[in-house]
Amino acid sequence: MDFDAMFDAQLNALKEEGNYRIFAELERQCGAFPRAKSHDEETPDEVTVWCSNDYLGMGQNAHIREVMKDAIDSCGTGAGGTRNISGTNNHHVALERELADLHGKEAALLFTSGYVSNWAALSTLGGRLPDAVILSDELNHASMIEGIRHSRAKKVIWKHNDPEDLDRKLAALPANAPKIVAFESVYSMDGDICPMKEIVEVAEKHGAMTYLDEVHAVGLYGPRGGGVSEREGLAHRITLIEGTLGKAYGCMGGYITGSAAMCDFVRSFASGFIFTTALPPAVAAAAKASVAYLKDSSEERHAQRDRVAYLRAQLDKQGIPHLGNASHIIPVMIKDPVKCRMLSDILMRDWGIYVQPINYPTVPKGTERLRFTPGPLHSYDDIDHLVEALSVLWKQCAIAHAVA
Amino acid sequence: MDFDAMFDAQLNALKEEGNYRIFAELERQCGAFPRAKSHDEETPDEVTVWCSNDYLGMGQNAHIREVMKDAIDSCGTGAGGTRNISGTNNHHVALERELADLHGKEAALLFTSGYVSNWAALSTLGGRLPDAVILSDELNHASMIEGIRHSRAKKVIWKHNDPEDLDRKLAALPANAPKIVAFESVYSMDGDICPMKEIVEVAEKHGAMTYLDEVHAVGLYGPRGGGVSEREGLAHRITLIEGTLGKAYGCMGGYITGSAAMCDFVRSFASGFIFTTALPPAVAAAAKASVAYLKDSSEERHAQRDRVAYLRAQLDKQGIPHLGNASHIIPVMIKDPVKCRMLSDILMRDWGIYVQPINYPTVPKGTERLRFTPGPLHSYDDIDHLVEALSVLWKQCAIAHAVA
Repeated sequence: MDFDAMFDAQLNALKEEGNYRIFAELERQCGAFPRAKSHDEETPDEVTVWCSNDYLGMGQNAHIREVMKDAIDSCGTGAGGTRNISGTNNHHVALERELADLHGKEAALLFTSGYVSNWAALSTLGGRLPDAVILSDELNHASMIEGIRHSRAKKVIWKHNDPEDLDRKLAALPANAPKIVAFESVYSMDGDICPMKEIVEVAEKHGAMTYLDEVHAVGLYGPRGGGVSEREGLAHRITLIEGTLGKAYGCMGGYITGSAAMCDFVRSFASGFIFTTALPPAVAAAAKASVAYLKDSSEERHAQRDRVAYLRAQLDKQGIPHLGNASHIIPVMIKDPVKCRMLSDILMRDWGIYVQPINYPTVPKGTERLRFTPGPLHSYDDIDHLVEALSVLWKQCAIAHAVA
Repeated sequence: MDFDAMFDAQLNALKEEGNYRIFAELERQCGAFPRAKSHDEETPDEVTVWCSNDYLGMGQNAHIREVMKDAIDSCGTGAGGTRNISGTNNHHVALERELADLHGKEAALLFTSGYVSNWAALSTLGGRLPDAVILSDELNHASMIEGIRHSRAKKVIWKHNDPEDLDRKLAALPANAPKIVAFESVYSMDGDICPMKEIVEVAEKHGAMTYLDEVHAVGLYGPRGGGVSEREGLAHRITLIEGTLGKAYGCMGGYITGSAAMCDFVRSFASGFIFTTALPPAVAAAAKASVAYLKDSSEERHAQRDRVAYLRAQLDKQGIPHLGNASHIIPVMIKDPVKCRMLSDILMRDWGIYVQPINYPTVPKGTERLRFTPGPLHSYDDIDHLVEALSVLWKQCAIAHAVA
């Protein structure tokens, strides 16, 4: 059987619809973020990265780097085992304590990624609580969707950010079924923020557990970086807060926080937690240092907000439409996969601006976009350069019509 | 609804059957492997680790550590994005080339862990090849089982390491259905090695794809560490070889290798690949250095084999039964979860020997064991000390009867 021909057929279909992905090969320049060397032909040697999720540039923070290097020299390059079989290091335990404290919870549980934390926690909660029903916001991330699917629990999708729809759907369920309301604080592709208080109140009214994904918010919102739930004073009313160490904290890994019993439950039953090598202790040490750093320092958050406001204002001045939202994410809608790719290519080749085209399946077809994430390390000159490039492109007829 | 009470009820059931897991909190001492500081009370401050999957002690290799630290200083602590959205670094690309070369394949694809590589690749292959049937060895790892389950493809389980049973089961399937034969080279809990040539021949006879998990073999077997498939000269006949960077290579991450079309297919469609932050470039750099190092150096492999043979011989001399197999893994069967835990506790507390009890769900109930993985860094004195401890415990009546 010619398997390669079967693979090629599906890949060709992707290419024909413009959704085939080409990765930009970069070499981030530590100390010069957001600058990176480009390893691709036909691009300038140095480019400015405009689409990183290392939102605050913590990945180049000298203190975090030193902590990580010191831990490599003291513990080595890897964990050497699963958490159960020789892989638990004091750095993992200390990081879990730090994360529990960040969200004011009894306990935390560390995973190899945010994806795995959502997948493993939701599949375990949904799969092991008898007759559980998971109520999932319709725009939840793929990792939550796959976790819910894997749990084989009953799933009810509610309208995006609509507490009234959630209320109706909760009311229609049996009173004695365990209910899990799964949602995000900041939705990464539109950058909108959920009406958290209303959602929590609806969930409480129906005795449902709340499962909140804060991956695009931890480190960025709240006085200690505890996310939108901290900023809104709601963390203590959320059953489970999930977050990542791979975005604002500049490292790698994911986690859940909540009651000691709940974390112990997931620890004890989640296949995706049990049967995998633990994070390198050095990554855990670096992540702990980054979480602790951003508990104390708000300078990066303030600078980020300043750059976000400045980019929005400059885009408005030039009449370049962008999605309005209350977050740090600035989507410019292109609505066509081929044109989105073309714009991205021109920005990279002619302007040294790297912004990946966001196409299906990351966003629905027809909502393709460029997604900008300004951070504290982007200068005003960087922003002016970006806006100039977009203005020039916007004025070119073909593109102006294309996105009108 | 009292969710914590529901969690506690299931945790209490685990505790009652002796399967509740307690993680040993260690601090590996780089430069002194297999020694680690213990952070637990009632244990000696320093213990010898006997159950690590850092099989060759590469985690403390000075060259690999330097490469990782240098990459931290040049690229930072994290990748900053998914592979598609700003997260592909030159170190990821170079590592993928190194892995393709290791197995003599056209391409490789990197994942955040071996677990994720199995889960994502099998769920994508099984889910997207129309009418696919996955034929799974009955002792395959949890990550493969979950990937197959997630694919919702038809699943046929064949008897462990039994090519004749596989042949019968393949013959019973429709000729035109795409078939995937999924198996491992070294099964980590019994340490047995599959009859690879026979399995490959049966698969070829039926036009089935072969999916081989070599996570407990890469770095350890074959003249360049390419695994059992390299040693047997069979790599070119296997469709997909999956491996890990978190065991013998001492780092973190997983991968698949195979045809360019197949790797591109998984890259383009696997949720668990697409929607997750890439490995830190420094981890990729260290892993590449480790793979390259073990392509050239066989010293660690030879020393490991020597220690394995010595431990087996000493156990035999003392009449301590252990599972016979042709690998580096030495299981001593206890067959009771409570006694297994007790033995492990005594070894740790009284002898400074750390070997985690292996209980359900890692192994079937009734097959609980201590699993020893001697490596090049265990001295003959270490081995003598371990065998002495086991002999003393074996002679104590209660335990001798317990395991008789």
